[in-house]
Amino acid sequence: MTTVTQPDEATAAVTTWLGQFGEALAANDPARAAALFTEDSFWRDLIAFTWNIRTFEGRDEITRMLGATLSRVQPGGWKITAGGEPAEAGGVTEAWIDFETSVGRGKGQLRLRDGQCWTLLTTLYELKGYEEPNGPRRPMGAEHGANPDRTSWQENRDQEAASLGVTQQPYVLIVGGGQAGIGLAARLRQLSVPTIVIDKRARPGDQWRSRYRSLCLHDPVWYDHMPYLKFPDNWPVFSPKDKIADWLESYTRIMELNYWPSTEAKSASYNETTGEWTVTVEREGQPVVLRPRQLVLATGMSGKPNVPSFPGMETFRGDQHHSSAHPGPDAYRGQRCVVVGSNNSAFDICGALWETGADVTMVQRSSTHISRSASLMEIALGALYSEEAVAAGMTTEKADLTFASVPYRIMHIFQIPVYEQMRERDKDFYERLEKAGFDHDWGDDNSGLFMKYLRRGSGYYIDVGAADLVANGDVKLVRGQVDHLTETGVVLEDGTELPADLVVYATGYNSMNGWAADLISPEVADKVGKCWGLGSGTTKDPGPWEGEERNMWKPTQQEALWFHGGNLHQSRHYSLYLALQLKAREAGLPAPVYGLQEVHHRS
Amino acid sequence: MTTVTQPDEATAAVTTWLGQFGEALAANDPARAAALFTEDSFWRDLIAFTWNIRTFEGRDEITRMLGATLSRVQPGGWKITAGGEPAEAGGVTEAWIDFETSVGRGKGQLRLRDGQCWTLLTTLYELKGYEEPNGPRRPMGAEHGANPDRTSWQENRDQEAASLGVTQQPYVLIVGGGQAGIGLAARLRQLSVPTIVIDKRARPGDQWRSRYRSLCLHDPVWYDHMPYLKFPDNWPVFSPKDKIADWLESYTRIMELNYWPSTEAKSASYNETTGEWTVTVEREGQPVVLRPRQLVLATGMSGKPNVPSFPGMETFRGDQHHSSAHPGPDAYRGQRCVVVGSNNSAFDICGALWETGADVTMVQRSSTHISRSASLMEIALGALYSEEAVAAGMTTEKADLTFASVPYRIMHIFQIPVYEQMRERDKDFYERLEKAGFDHDWGDDNSGLFMKYLRRGSGYYIDVGAADLVANGDVKLVRGQVDHLTETGVVLEDGTELPADLVVYATGYNSMNGWAADLISPEVADKVGKCWGLGSGTTKDPGPWEGEERNMWKPTQQEALWFHGGNLHQSRHYSLYLALQLKAREAGLPAPVYGLQEVHHRS
Repeated sequence: MTTVTQPDEATAAVTTWLGQFGEALAANDPARAAALFTEDSFWRDLIAFTWNIRTFEGRDEITRMLGATLSRVQPGGWKITAGGEPAEAGGVTEAWIDFETSVGRGKGQLRLRDGQCWTLLTTLYELKGYEEPNGPRRPMGAEHGANPDRTSWQENRDQEAASLGVTQQPYVLIVGGGQAGIGLAARLRQLSVPTIVIDKRARPGDQWRSRYRSLCLHDPVWYDHMPYLKFPDNWPVFSPKDKIADWLESYTRIMELNYWPSTEAKSASYNETTGEWTVTVEREGQPVVLRPRQLVLATGMSGKPNVPSFPGMETFRGDQHHSSAHPGPDAYRGQRCVVVGSNNSAFDICGALWETGADVTMVQRSSTHISRSASLMEIALGALYSEEAVAAGMTTEKADLTFASVPYRIMHIFQIPVYEQMRERDKDFYERLEKAGFDHDWGDDNSGLFMKYLRRGSGYYIDVGAADLVANGDVKLVRGQVDHLTETGVVLEDGTELPADLVVYATGYNSMNGWAADLISPEVADKVGKCWGLGSGTTKDPGPWEGEERNMWKPTQQEALWFHGGNLHQSRHYSLYLALQLKAREAGLPAPVYGLQEVHHRS
Repeated sequence: MTTVTQPDEATAAVTTWLGQFGEALAANDPARAAALFTEDSFWRDLIAFTWNIRTFEGRDEITRMLGATLSRVQPGGWKITAGGEPAEAGGVTEAWIDFETSVGRGKGQLRLRDGQCWTLLTTLYELKGYEEPNGPRRPMGAEHGANPDRTSWQENRDQEAASLGVTQQPYVLIVGGGQAGIGLAARLRQLSVPTIVIDKRARPGDQWRSRYRSLCLHDPVWYDHMPYLKFPDNWPVFSPKDKIADWLESYTRIMELNYWPSTEAKSASYNETTGEWTVTVEREGQPVVLRPRQLVLATGMSGKPNVPSFPGMETFRGDQHHSSAHPGPDAYRGQRCVVVGSNNSAFDICGALWETGADVTMVQRSSTHISRSASLMEIALGALYSEEAVAAGMTTEKADLTFASVPYRIMHIFQIPVYEQMRERDKDFYERLEKAGFDHDWGDDNSGLFMKYLRRGSGYYIDVGAADLVANGDVKLVRGQVDHLTETGVVLEDGTELPADLVVYATGYNSMNGWAADLISPEVADKVGKCWGLGSGTTKDPGPWEGEERNMWKPTQQEALWFHGGNLHQSRHYSLYLALQLKAREAGLPAPVYGLQEVHHRS
């Protein structure tokens, strides 16, 4: 077996480019640096240059950004990551790179075309002087030697739990103790930022336990790891809800989080002068006032139910509730159930009701995209998040960065062929659905599920079986708009009457800034504007183009207010950058924000 | 950067040897196979050939073993492990190898000298048809499709918890829910062997929580991983007792174990005719009779306190207890404390008492070896279990197998130089100890701490600070034997009187077969004989030579009775082989034991 690896053209090209780029930056010459990029280039920065999450498009935007940041950032040490050899394919040379700034260390990804940079990703992963205590820097645990003033680990934990929020104020308060909140809290613990997580439910994991019986994660295990503690190799592909709940409960303990269960945030206001929040919470029935410097809402990207208001709802004599409040199917055996909506929750609930022996009708109000779970795993996620990817040496961290390296502006171009493949692969499935009268779409530009998720956070179903029930008529399908309810059922605009004992409104969720309206004020909610969405100008994602998810994981128009969430992958990946932004402020490092987003939509 | 790897002499030598070995075995020719070994060779087998844990020394023993096992085992497919390239150093060529048997797949390690095998390790890691459901075989979790009879993960878990031990009998009962018991139970769960773990304490982890306040593990994190779920990178080097307790509690849940807390085994008897144990346990105060086919005692290798019997103990008016019952120092501030013993527990307790402000005297009755923790980590464990080892690509599994590949008969030869180095490195420390009158030894043959642990499980202290208290006189040291106690103190044989408010008997532990005496009968305890010890003929490890730890992790003279335990490393590593032995029996695979050990010592 003979292996010869030699410095090849790809490495030479990257080395040359990095040399020129490093020199231009060191010379504090933005125009010279920008000239190394293609006309149609993208530079995505995750807090390394901008203390913001921004993508810059073309030389002019890059020049302006560098002009404003370069003298402070003082980037240097650009080099190819050890073990991340450059490779060329289809005229594009890719490379993993390392660099430093005046305050931290960064990783990046580079794509060259004809010797010029087409896409550049720069990310900060640690702050100098505030490196996380892991691996070679892990704590000793035992304090060796003899010390009459010794306190034990448990005593220290008890002491912290007793004082934080009582005699000592947390620097960060995280509202919401689901996977997003606790993953962020784990990172902040590593960075020694005093943090409390509150959640209204009785136990960590109850966010999942309280959902319907048959729920399993729709994303596979490789996509779902939490920071620091990976699921073991025997973890199921799709976590059952109670199993992930138990995991998250263990996680809060293993990560030594200050987690306040049965605690609800009642009101919050920010004092611009003192830079302090006043947050009134009810902890196990008792009011407590917390005064954190930073407030993070991690109450769920899809957390605020959009409950519709149909005439006659007040007269309906059966059960009716939003999908988020659906107790599961057990009480509805043999009953007539109408589910309004045709996305993920609607399908899941229809499937579970049918399994229990209910008579189920789905009301489809607008077109929906469906990807079959197995196809999604194989052709959309497989290269980055799968057993095969792991076997080929792909780590979760590298997969996350690879995904992050594709600019949102052109991501659909990479997605469209995936769904063309899916359409071919599952041809019979889609034909059967169509025959059953289902209004199926592939997204405005045929870019499929993930772009819908990124643009609007809705409009799709990851099929784990319930689509077949619709296709074969086991779950009845009706298309149209709800006009009103009567005492005994739902009436559509075309006059169709659907008698019902149960009506479920699987009508989706509103923007996270609705949480800010409730907790802080409508004024602050309007000031920060809508969360989520790229401004793509596609359905339910109006422009102007933003280039990044609105308000997520980055500074907002309200000082010291942050939004955190997304799916497990996003929560894991972006929690690092949010944690570093919070740490920089706690440590008093200058972290001026470049290009703070403007607000174009209020909700 | 140019790397050239070519088939070298080491690879050629191993390939040649494996070819000849494989042919001799395939030809069912034990003598021809044995002739490929050196005169002074060792073949250590972990259940692959013998369904036993045995080391064979020299060609005759190897020939006899092969003669008895070869036609059944049908080994084949001998090859160098991918990525485990052979290497030569000092005339010894080492290689990692794979092979198969008629029932399973194995891994091994080989050392050649002049083209002949000097040491061979063969281990079985999985049974064909009973591969563990992990990695590419992990469970789906979600059951896709629509199924009216669907039960959820939680319902299945609840149903199992309600029926196992009530309407369905466990195949295996594990007595003792510390790290050893639950690690084994986790493996049995993966192998679908119905198992219950019982423990008398209220919560998993209480085995650690109940110990004295300042206790931390004496072994470092890299040595301590549990099966399947590794400690995260931010885990401390030395786990504080409450932190490891929380981890173990989470572990039982994450691994979905059937763990009965607050449950004590009261009596057990085996029916040789039906092959069934009758075990009466008290579960939360209620008697329950269990009828497992296999009984595992995992109550602690050092679990049965050796409480001495000194004249006058009944008249002593202060507190007195065995070290295992020591409540910690808090009640003894300012009091006169006498600790009888000079090993690990004695030092830990003396240190904590001194820190609390007690007046402490250690009674040293016999010589003790002390290794400083940092030195032990660096020069004894570092190559296999350390951050540096991890960085160099060493995995826990590979480290365990590497350690397992050194035959016990010659292990001291590798250990002696380590302690020569330690003696030099910590010269000042040992001189100060000696000056203080401490009776220090390096083991009968200067082979140090680990050989003492393997031979007798006692006689040493891993210094985390308390040795200095003895060296500098903060903890008073007295040498001699206890003659009797008075109402007010301890009197030594030389007449020395030690006034005391507290006497702690840090007098060690008895063999695990004492547990069998209590639970089953003295007859069965005598029948299986002493646990632990190699028969080295050194202090407290009388011959004849056994070559393996007596009765540990392998069949005993009592059918269906097993002993499991050791430190975290051993519990992790050997739990695999014990689990496979139990699985083979549960699955009805023929698993004839070759070379069942004889009993030479009863306790």
